[in-house]
Amino acid sequence: MHRSIATVSLSGTLPEKLEAIAAAGFDGVEIFENDLLYYDGSPREIRQMCADLGIAITLFQPFRDFEGCRRDRLARNIERAERKFDLMQELGTDLVLVCSNASADSVGDRQILVDDLHLLAEHAGKRNLRIGYEALAWGKHVNTYQQVWDIVKAADHPNLGVLLDSFHTLSLKGDPAAIADIPGDKIFFVQMADAPILNMDVLEWSRHFRCFPGQGEFDLPGFLAPIIKSGYTGPLSLEIFNDGFRAAPPRANAADGLRSLLYLEEKTRKLLEQEAAPVPNLDILFSPPQADAYDGIEFLEFAVDEAQGAKLTNVLEQLGFAKAGQHKSKAVSLMRQGDINLILNSEPYSFAHNFFESHGPSLCATAIRVKDSAKALERAVAYKGQPFRGLVGPNERELAAVRAPDGSLIYLVDQDAQGRTIYDTDFSVKEVKQNPLGLKRIDHMAMALPPDNLDNWTLFYKSLLDFTADDEVVLPDPYGLVKSRAVRSRDSSIRLPLNISENRNTAISHALSTYRGSGVHHIAFDCDDIFAAVTKAKEAGLALLDIPLNYYDDLAARFDFDDEFLSELAYYNVLYDRDANGGELFHVYTEPFEDRFFFEIIQRRNGYAGYGAANVAVRLAAMAKARSKGVRHAKL
Amino acid sequence: MHRSIATVSLSGTLPEKLEAIAAAGFDGVEIFENDLLYYDGSPREIRQMCADLGIAITLFQPFRDFEGCRRDRLARNIERAERKFDLMQELGTDLVLVCSNASADSVGDRQILVDDLHLLAEHAGKRNLRIGYEALAWGKHVNTYQQVWDIVKAADHPNLGVLLDSFHTLSLKGDPAAIADIPGDKIFFVQMADAPILNMDVLEWSRHFRCFPGQGEFDLPGFLAPIIKSGYTGPLSLEIFNDGFRAAPPRANAADGLRSLLYLEEKTRKLLEQEAAPVPNLDILFSPPQADAYDGIEFLEFAVDEAQGAKLTNVLEQLGFAKAGQHKSKAVSLMRQGDINLILNSEPYSFAHNFFESHGPSLCATAIRVKDSAKALERAVAYKGQPFRGLVGPNERELAAVRAPDGSLIYLVDQDAQGRTIYDTDFSVKEVKQNPLGLKRIDHMAMALPPDNLDNWTLFYKSLLDFTADDEVVLPDPYGLVKSRAVRSRDSSIRLPLNISENRNTAISHALSTYRGSGVHHIAFDCDDIFAAVTKAKEAGLALLDIPLNYYDDLAARFDFDDEFLSELAYYNVLYDRDANGGELFHVYTEPFEDRFFFEIIQRRNGYAGYGAANVAVRLAAMAKARSKGVRHAKL
Repeated sequence: MHRSIATVSLSGTLPEKLEAIAAAGFDGVEIFENDLLYYDGSPREIRQMCADLGIAITLFQPFRDFEGCRRDRLARNIERAERKFDLMQELGTDLVLVCSNASADSVGDRQILVDDLHLLAEHAGKRNLRIGYEALAWGKHVNTYQQVWDIVKAADHPNLGVLLDSFHTLSLKGDPAAIADIPGDKIFFVQMADAPILNMDVLEWSRHFRCFPGQGEFDLPGFLAPIIKSGYTGPLSLEIFNDGFRAAPPRANAADGLRSLLYLEEKTRKLLEQEAAPVPNLDILFSPPQADAYDGIEFLEFAVDEAQGAKLTNVLEQLGFAKAGQHKSKAVSLMRQGDINLILNSEPYSFAHNFFESHGPSLCATAIRVKDSAKALERAVAYKGQPFRGLVGPNERELAAVRAPDGSLIYLVDQDAQGRTIYDTDFSVKEVKQNPLGLKRIDHMAMALPPDNLDNWTLFYKSLLDFTADDEVVLPDPYGLVKSRAVRSRDSSIRLPLNISENRNTAISHALSTYRGSGVHHIAFDCDDIFAAVTKAKEAGLALLDIPLNYYDDLAARFDFDDEFLSELAYYNVLYDRDANGGELFHVYTEPFEDRFFFEIIQRRNGYAGYGAANVAVRLAAMAKARSKGVRHAKL
Repeated sequence: MHRSIATVSLSGTLPEKLEAIAAAGFDGVEIFENDLLYYDGSPREIRQMCADLGIAITLFQPFRDFEGCRRDRLARNIERAERKFDLMQELGTDLVLVCSNASADSVGDRQILVDDLHLLAEHAGKRNLRIGYEALAWGKHVNTYQQVWDIVKAADHPNLGVLLDSFHTLSLKGDPAAIADIPGDKIFFVQMADAPILNMDVLEWSRHFRCFPGQGEFDLPGFLAPIIKSGYTGPLSLEIFNDGFRAAPPRANAADGLRSLLYLEEKTRKLLEQEAAPVPNLDILFSPPQADAYDGIEFLEFAVDEAQGAKLTNVLEQLGFAKAGQHKSKAVSLMRQGDINLILNSEPYSFAHNFFESHGPSLCATAIRVKDSAKALERAVAYKGQPFRGLVGPNERELAAVRAPDGSLIYLVDQDAQGRTIYDTDFSVKEVKQNPLGLKRIDHMAMALPPDNLDNWTLFYKSLLDFTADDEVVLPDPYGLVKSRAVRSRDSSIRLPLNISENRNTAISHALSTYRGSGVHHIAFDCDDIFAAVTKAKEAGLALLDIPLNYYDDLAARFDFDDEFLSELAYYNVLYDRDANGGELFHVYTEPFEDRFFFEIIQRRNGYAGYGAANVAVRLAAMAKARSKGVRHAKL
């Protein structure tokens, strides 16, 4: 499809916006009038700028309060339109958005609306310009696409057509199905916007809370499907009024916008492929290779130097990991327990080394198990993922990899043609005691992100990897709120809670500032007997996060535990949660490693599916306390 | 009244909260259970901490889902209560909040609720503890204070009483009038919370959007009035769940909380004084001296050094101001035009000098004309305003002054006993040409504030000075949104738009970073003939903010101006706005002075009452352009 975006969707001056739009790979741009108004160059200069950037000006907008205006104002309004037509010709665009009249004194007589729009189309037609008529959700007399189509049909002018905007229909809970019955060539333009479902004034909702497709709660594939069925082949354009977008970096945001359109096209295509009668034109929709099946995390790779590597090895040994291998040609070691593989990379002149230099000890790569890494990479790249090729030694495997939004790597790892794993080919592996603490697998891996990056990361996982996203939960830190939204593979074998905080002093903000960027926040290992695991870890000298005794007094009030069991929980700093179905979670946290990330040992019983949200507040308070202790120590 | 606040209203660890609460001057604190849970000291330590700080523990809260619980859980629930009673006795508080059962499986049979609460009161009574029963707005069977009082009356136990929370009544649009009929001694506790009117799930609304009295849209004096009429003399406590408060500095926030309670008391007292029958107990409500009448701004004082003073003098001379006086003993000069007095202070070892040292050239004091400065100051101090006394030379007047929230001064200036103004007493004044550009008075003065300070400033002006606050407007800057809320004296002779921006790169954020704190953003002067004024100013060499020609093309489309007039507007960079009633605004901006603040010349016609919000976006874009030019110049 021809993909477009309105200038109002991005932050910055008009040239900054146009450059971002071109860089993201859009084909065209809607010029929002105010952006032009505030720019101190002529419309001809903008036309040239767009031509130089290789983007078409798909639309000029908006022209307001025209049809059904007070009769004594009609002539004046035509004059106003002629001035804007001059401007459009200077800009070199032939289409203007006319939105339905929202003024209180406008008239609703159908014949007047038809006549007014016919008159306007006559004026436009003399210059070979076209009018796209749109129903505003808060239009005084016209607020549905059905009314718009009725009027456009009656006006019957070649220079007048329908303009559709998903927000105006879906915000009023309109049914888009009848769009399929409009002739595709009478739909002049389509704007796509998503939004969270909010019970508020629709104009305020529209002006401040729109978002890119897939970021909100509207059924946008359900809106686009009848448009494709109508035979429409024109631009698909993003018109997003969003307070956050007005301040977001325009280049990154424009890139997200394009990716969201691609994702919408893929979903819509899948929907239309299920139709009984084949839909023509399906091929105009984006169609990447289907997502692969996953089977958990193959390994995690930490960037360290020699000193940090030794420290981390020590902590991991306290957690029951054993050194199971050494890379054949690099300063890279493998720690293993159960199905968990952790790689510590201190190779100089490597990707990991660069990562260490800029972020300190941190997670630099996540390898996920796929069936077909080539196909998985192809999909990621189709979604504008940035592939990565590292240095490969003789007889080593080259791993398919794509950059995560923070610059770390996501390896897509399968078995090679001979059925060998990466460890077989690249490492000298030795047998180790299988499972000293009983840790079995990586249950989940939480990330700390800058506050405005949550949507970007969520879209990344949803589109490139076809993950699903859970609902957002809000958790109280002593110094502000933390928001958490988990993404997970469809088989739930990979789970990544993404955490943000808009406040300066929370644990998440603290983690971010020590990382200089986003980073892994904690890694949770699954086991079958947490007390056995923690007993051994304590014996090995592992430092656990200290939980206040008051927490256990409250557990005593809430649950019918005997005192001995409670004492045991308190002694081992084990937290407890129970869900509505009787599912139980036991979990314990380590103290943070180098003030950056920490580990968690968890045991799920009776199908507990969450992440212990009920206990996050006590954990965050304990971490804040540990931090302030750290500060105190540092001061002494 | 006994003034209290819940720990959940503030950010930080429990000790940080308690210290902030004591420092603000509260008499007591509600301990929110989670704050205790997450604290790693015993309840006895908290009790001691409060005693040392001189604050009472007024309440322990909440105890949930008790009355009407599933019958098989009643015994277990009593046991849970006994555990919490232990805790309360350790804490040294006798009152617990029991909120109405919100669980889906609770029963609503009135007799069961009565019996359950009677049983709980029996248990509490054995320890001399008391139960305050509160209706949650989302309680399953009980969600009004009328139901609560009915049940408490029927249970008829001395250790059981009513607990009121303004949010739970007003969010459901309940009428508080009948509270007056509850015997005051059966109301055990009162919680006050305001909120913006939001059309959303009431639980989410309550948990995230409460605010201090006067910051929202509830009629809180209307809620407190019947409580006072009931004879209630217990604590008035703030229980504010607010996402912003969870991250705000606790000391400043607690101080705002106390001030908001005082303001609420004053308003409530005024309301009750209008009652036909005198209300007993009125004297427990805060009663500061009534606010004074105002008569505009007497003078503005700028902190400068010699070099900046010369530059600013030059700009002011281009604006038609003349040097009209010199302070008798200080390096302080007076610039005058019409009714506008501007003071440039470069006196070393002065308040202004300190202000200059930390903020650069900036507005350091605003003098407002009052009838009785002593009374005005007394009111400000009663509202915890910080009075200021400067150095006073021989035969000089001492001006009453209070610190604004940013540390600048607000002088409260009247004529002295002999009817002489400050200029007569302290300055050597000379006659100057009265009004070269025709600027008459200070129309308004806009301030740039850090984003989380808007409520603080608004409350400051509303309480200390009895100003009113206009509705908030949102204005688009190229790099984010700017919010503006004007406060004004009741006679509108003093108008202060307060501007904030949550985004990093807007004009407001830019102004803040150059000020290192809040500061005056621009000062608008009123005149009768803007073209005459601007012509002279241009001749004098004044640099005006350049407005793009596209803006005037749009004016041409929108209004029926002839081309000559439009050219004149464009030539002089004059902006235009027209309101719905035909009121007209003409205004022009200067380029920023030292990248800090700028001046505006405005002419209002036909009763135009706003501030030209329609043109703020083009001004912000022009300023962003000017800034980036500045950056470019700086780079060359």
